[in-house]
Amino acid sequence: MSERLVLPRPCLVFIADVSDPRYAKTAKGLIDWVPEHCVGEWALPGNPLRLGLPVLDPAAARARGARSLVIGVAPVGGRILDNWVPALVQALEAGLDLVSGMHTPLAGIAALAAAAERRGRRLIDLRIPPSELPVASGRPRPGRRLLTVGSDCAVGKKYTALALTRALRERGLNADFRASGQTGILIAGQGLPIDAVKADFIAGAAELLSPVADPDHWDVIEGQGSLVHPGYAAVSLGLLSGSQPDVLVLCHEAGRSHVSGYGPQFPLPPLAELIELNLAHARLRRPGARCAGISLNTGTLSAVKAEQAMAALEQELGLPVVDPVRGGTRFVALVEACLALRR
Amino acid sequence: MSERLVLPRPCLVFIADVSDPRYAKTAKGLIDWVPEHCVGEWALPGNPLRLGLPVLDPAAARARGARSLVIGVAPVGGRILDNWVPALVQALEAGLDLVSGMHTPLAGIAALAAAAERRGRRLIDLRIPPSELPVASGRPRPGRRLLTVGSDCAVGKKYTALALTRALRERGLNADFRASGQTGILIAGQGLPIDAVKADFIAGAAELLSPVADPDHWDVIEGQGSLVHPGYAAVSLGLLSGSQPDVLVLCHEAGRSHVSGYGPQFPLPPLAELIELNLAHARLRRPGARCAGISLNTGTLSAVKAEQAMAALEQELGLPVVDPVRGGTRFVALVEACLALRR
Repeated sequence: MSERLVLPRPCLVFIADVSDPRYAKTAKGLIDWVPEHCVGEWALPGNPLRLGLPVLDPAAARARGARSLVIGVAPVGGRILDNWVPALVQALEAGLDLVSGMHTPLAGIAALAAAAERRGRRLIDLRIPPSELPVASGRPRPGRRLLTVGSDCAVGKKYTALALTRALRERGLNADFRASGQTGILIAGQGLPIDAVKADFIAGAAELLSPVADPDHWDVIEGQGSLVHPGYAAVSLGLLSGSQPDVLVLCHEAGRSHVSGYGPQFPLPPLAELIELNLAHARLRRPGARCAGISLNTGTLSAVKAEQAMAALEQELGLPVVDPVRGGTRFVALVEACLALRR
Repeated sequence: MSERLVLPRPCLVFIADVSDPRYAKTAKGLIDWVPEHCVGEWALPGNPLRLGLPVLDPAAARARGARSLVIGVAPVGGRILDNWVPALVQALEAGLDLVSGMHTPLAGIAALAAAAERRGRRLIDLRIPPSELPVASGRPRPGRRLLTVGSDCAVGKKYTALALTRALRERGLNADFRASGQTGILIAGQGLPIDAVKADFIAGAAELLSPVADPDHWDVIEGQGSLVHPGYAAVSLGLLSGSQPDVLVLCHEAGRSHVSGYGPQFPLPPLAELIELNLAHARLRRPGARCAGISLNTGTLSAVKAEQAMAALEQELGLPVVDPVRGGTRFVALVEACLALRR
């Protein structure tokens, strides 16, 4: 059966003419989590933004072993601009594949399609899932699985899954991060863009994303959206159902009271209710599924306020609460809670 | 909204090698609801299933006025199998258009594309949704909406929605059947194939399917799958979320104890739990959502056993229970419960 996308690496990180670091978050995610796969960075002439990698053009990057150029920016609109195209052609001519998470399909740009054809290079769109996906079998499968679920979008599900994967590996455990979104796929080098899968096959795609594994192997799966999101609840449920997680970690942003971008008439339910709703669905496929704890994004709070928020939530829910960016003993407690549940 | 389909009729109903009547529900739906559009049925050699229409090959059907062959089966996965292709080519050669609700696009099969081109025939895919769909807004909208939800696939959600639409109209109410699957679309002549929509847009597609309407207008929406189905739960949740129903009717088959096609290790939960799970999600978008009753498919039972089963379930759940195929006073009670809930 078809297969998760596997990206050619290492890569040259391309930021085009995007000089605002807020729109270079994709590049920053790559450099934060997989610097060993980034041989260099490249920008269009006149762009002053630097990310701290060696500045290389495609030919120099190829000479240092790069196999692909990754478009590391996501400007508003998510389109590949006309003035980027000559640089992208230059990369293809230098022998690099192109990797993009933009909405514009690479092959829809004639100059790129022609150059890729001419040089036998690949144009890889991270938002296009495999064409032949199965309906989920629902069958129990060996291996341990952890899914980060959310109260909303953009609360830290990807970051939490990456941090937990790293922590499990540091303990000597066999663990893989399983990416379900475009930035996660870039970081992991493989994965499946679950939000672009046709409805009937979402859970089936999730089964492929975290396949049969050794009984002691951990898949740490990047969650998407939220079961209570007005737009994306179906994505979240398909991923939850097909992932068959043993362990959930609920991700939330401190102080967020309603669905981001939807307004105050869309309040988030209490986290305890959200945990119960996620578990009701998870236990249909994995009767022993448990919530190990809460990942609380406290990025907008002072250290003192963050600790107070985490302590209060821990008291309320009776579960470990941690901001993985802050780490510390709270993070250790969450990791141990994740591991304890299957013993 | 997608353009209204104008299907070439009447049609020859093709069931290929599908001998399990549960997977021939497209054919059965057409015959039950628009028999005037069905001139005959056709199967592959060796398939013993008969639907009660004249058995005709494509040439004979054409001679009786047929303008299309409709693929009347929907096996798991919704794919056109290789061994069906020669028969489909034969239909094109006989001068029939092809109408398909499969996921496989007809024109993606080279032999069909070639035969259609050669004979100037049309290949009509019902399962291709509009290309530009929105993410759901989640905003409350006027109009009354009823959604048939299920314990499983193929339990009577479409039939129940059609019967309720007919009953509401007979009472002089302004009501529309909203088709979310290929058979419903074939019957209604319009609709949106929700199971083929990309994950991010399922709820948004559901919002389009039952749009803003007069406050007294009823949309009776054909449900899909089940919130507890191993493969299709995401479809069900996206449709439930975007439909924002005031009223749910839970559809179930008497005696069905596990997910059809998945086996006894996939038991269905108690119906009371299923109602609560559906309402938990529905009330996120429509706080007053209620379950009006149960549509119980008793097709495998005698009249006496069916009445016993309905009475027992009514006692257990405290809700009206009816088999809409059997109708009678039970059906009247369900219709009144649907209408009462919004007063």
